[in-house]
Amino acid sequence: MGTDSDEGVDTQEAIMQATYRALCKDGYANLTVQAIADEFDKTKGVIHYHYDTKEALLVAFLEYLLEAFEQNIAVDDQADPDERLLTLIETLLFGPPERGEFDHWELMTALLEVRTEAPYNQEFRRQLTRNYETVEATVVAIVEEGIEDGTFREIDPELVATLLLTCLNGARIYQVTLQRDDVATDTQESLEAVVADWLRRSESADEPS
Amino acid sequence: MGTDSDEGVDTQEAIMQATYRALCKDGYANLTVQAIADEFDKTKGVIHYHYDTKEALLVAFLEYLLEAFEQNIAVDDQADPDERLLTLIETLLFGPPERGEFDHWELMTALLEVRTEAPYNQEFRRQLTRNYETVEATVVAIVEEGIEDGTFREIDPELVATLLLTCLNGARIYQVTLQRDDVATDTQESLEAVVADWLRRSESADEPS
Repeated sequence: MGTDSDEGVDTQEAIMQATYRALCKDGYANLTVQAIADEFDKTKGVIHYHYDTKEALLVAFLEYLLEAFEQNIAVDDQADPDERLLTLIETLLFGPPERGEFDHWELMTALLEVRTEAPYNQEFRRQLTRNYETVEATVVAIVEEGIEDGTFREIDPELVATLLLTCLNGARIYQVTLQRDDVATDTQESLEAVVADWLRRSESADEPS
Repeated sequence: MGTDSDEGVDTQEAIMQATYRALCKDGYANLTVQAIADEFDKTKGVIHYHYDTKEALLVAFLEYLLEAFEQNIAVDDQADPDERLLTLIETLLFGPPERGEFDHWELMTALLEVRTEAPYNQEFRRQLTRNYETVEATVVAIVEEGIEDGTFREIDPELVATLLLTCLNGARIYQVTLQRDDVATDTQESLEAVVADWLRRSESADEPS
């Protein structure tokens, strides 16, 4: 199959990057195959060859974002658990460092539009759930490691994961839907305080074991 | 003006309740003046008399939800700060006690659709910001009172408010967009742990003052 060859993979990568740019520019409502084709040097036919529907393209795009996230996180494997958690929080709030601030919030606005379709679209829901559970598992692994090496106190890692994920999701959505530009930075500060005062084992406040 | 008379107020209240039912049933995308008129014993003309546009009606509805929230919160003024905070968390996650569970999540789905319009609609953004800031001020007031009466430790109330609001917003949206029905209850558990372990002054872990 063409999609398994190197060329197919390169083309798919190019389509994903073009989708990314088109989403940031025009939003989800205005995303058309033509708008994506305009963002790279291929025709609409090439996109249709790889993705039958706009839905299939969007599901592939959510998968692409998840893979980018996983690669981004893997780099950081050597750092301490609390540093890794703070880096994860920053990445999930403001995007990976190589992306511009402007594009990140445009992308978040487009993803909110995709998410809003999810109650009516099983494929979106399935892929968003996969993304959620991957990030959740990443947080749980970091917290477990932190408990094991004594960085964090004894705490249910799932509770921490739920807190972080819901908080970051809510913050990203408030940031693009309210007349305030401080929610994301305030949230980073709040979560830093949670990590420092709640998660991190404090010398003076150790619990009796 | 008709809208200031008792009859006008009653009609507006009836329109708001009809809007509530229509939103829960059909979602925001399918919300029409006819669908609202079908939910009560008045004609479309009555609705148009009070609200020129669907946008004006939706802004009034967001205001109506905010007022319902404020009335709901005021009842609880006598309880301890930590109980009031836990009640607030429960109400914001699962709706006020008199609303059915089903309707609550249908409403949350419709409100997500309204919120998704906010980046492109200044009136929605303005009203959603007002709602956010009212809930924020409510949390700040409870935390300040809790610090004063010794229930909570010395903590920046604004940081707590940001954490709670983003977390609750993210949880409500995950609850209606993921293939999981446990995010809201998990979030309640997480925030209860935050209140118990992070906010509440612990006898054994008092900070030096």
